[in-house]
Amino acid sequence: MITSRDNELIKETVKLISSAKFRREKQKFVAEGVRLCRDGAESGAEITAFLFTQTAAEKYPQDFRLISSKSEKIYEVSEKLFKQISDTTSPQGFMCLFKTLDKQTTSYKISNKKCYTALENIQDPSNLGTILRTAEALGTDGIILSKDCCDIYMPKVVRGSMGAVFRVPVIIAGNFTEYISQLTKSGIKTYASTPHNAENINDIDFSDGGVMLIGNEGNGLKDETINACFKRVKILMKGRAESLNAAAAAAILMWCMQS
Amino acid sequence: MITSRDNELIKETVKLISSAKFRREKQKFVAEGVRLCRDGAESGAEITAFLFTQTAAEKYPQDFRLISSKSEKIYEVSEKLFKQISDTTSPQGFMCLFKTLDKQTTSYKISNKKCYTALENIQDPSNLGTILRTAEALGTDGIILSKDCCDIYMPKVVRGSMGAVFRVPVIIAGNFTEYISQLTKSGIKTYASTPHNAENINDIDFSDGGVMLIGNEGNGLKDETINACFKRVKILMKGRAESLNAAAAAAILMWCMQS
Repeated sequence: MITSRDNELIKETVKLISSAKFRREKQKFVAEGVRLCRDGAESGAEITAFLFTQTAAEKYPQDFRLISSKSEKIYEVSEKLFKQISDTTSPQGFMCLFKTLDKQTTSYKISNKKCYTALENIQDPSNLGTILRTAEALGTDGIILSKDCCDIYMPKVVRGSMGAVFRVPVIIAGNFTEYISQLTKSGIKTYASTPHNAENINDIDFSDGGVMLIGNEGNGLKDETINACFKRVKILMKGRAESLNAAAAAAILMWCMQS
Repeated sequence: MITSRDNELIKETVKLISSAKFRREKQKFVAEGVRLCRDGAESGAEITAFLFTQTAAEKYPQDFRLISSKSEKIYEVSEKLFKQISDTTSPQGFMCLFKTLDKQTTSYKISNKKCYTALENIQDPSNLGTILRTAEALGTDGIILSKDCCDIYMPKVVRGSMGAVFRVPVIIAGNFTEYISQLTKSGIKTYASTPHNAENINDIDFSDGGVMLIGNEGNGLKDETINACFKRVKILMKGRAESLNAAAAAAILMWCMQS
């Protein structure tokens, strides 16, 4: 049983929880909680280490067996230490180190007639997690992220996504604007959501599918990205609020495109 | 200039920020930041005290004049003390104590043909703030809250609402289920959003307006509340995610009803 913070695995885990740079270096990330660890195990993601407390193993025997069977190595951790390293206020006693999923490629094929969501410079991990969760629930075929979005492997994003991070195909585009521009040129319908000079989303025929672009919480999409798109679309605002929260806007936009 | 935490007004302000019980007792709440204080002043809400730093007064002279002109009393606070009492990480130097708006009544008239959103036991202040903001942006005619929702005057809710809390009519229903039941009996179309035995929201004709009910983040609406409604509606899920985040679901539901 591991009881000390000085243990090498514990030191690695703590750093994977807190540092995006370290996650990129190690190509690993941490997911915590019974549901998320099971979601990861079921998705086929590679588990390099499974950390658990005795109490949790006894409380969730089925999940314990499933996750153990998919893990390279398993380690019992003392209750006290688990609480110390956990990122949540009431830890459930399960934590897995996963290999990052191979999502850095831009060679992934965007298909005609399918529906995608593309995010430029989304900064709030709660928004990103919620958008991933919504995208999966509404049946999006994939998410495209600009490189400057917050890290999808941040614990808050993984948690907020309710496991969608393990299941929804994600592409991280090195040069986002250029990538969108290429899609538009190849005949994919790319829609920039922006309040300026845009068509009412209710007037758009989405039967050809396409890519819905959503921009940064404060500044929206960059002008050059808007210009690289097939069309500009907007959600009609009626009240005095000048804008919607990014995750609420994304929910409505994805709904309009996919339903 | 106030420099001490022992000042009576400062003690009151700190307690209003942290305690829902104290807010109810005093019938006051705190809003912070240039935009929110201005929104409150413009909405006609009563400002019992305006706290500002010299730097902020010089940086935002127009807002400073407007807010001062609407405030019963104004107080300069030292930069150091302002930072200490502020609920935000980068305080802008404006803070107002508002009288709570008269929203405890259930006598407010729900009109036919109009659109309302009703929330039962929403617990997350970020969700509540986002729902208020979305409701205003989409033009809802009012929000009905069950008494066990989190307090709308919590700083995180006020901030997340982007000022909508000052402008959207809110009713807090003492007996929520009973209130909804009365509405249904009086011919108002009340819609319970629930995944069970519900009609696809795309098949509903919302031309008569009505009330869209959204339940608790983990448990949804109570059975007795669902039974008190005119109809059950659901958002069709396609992915493995079993549910949407409450604020994302609310955005789609309000959009379907109001657009």
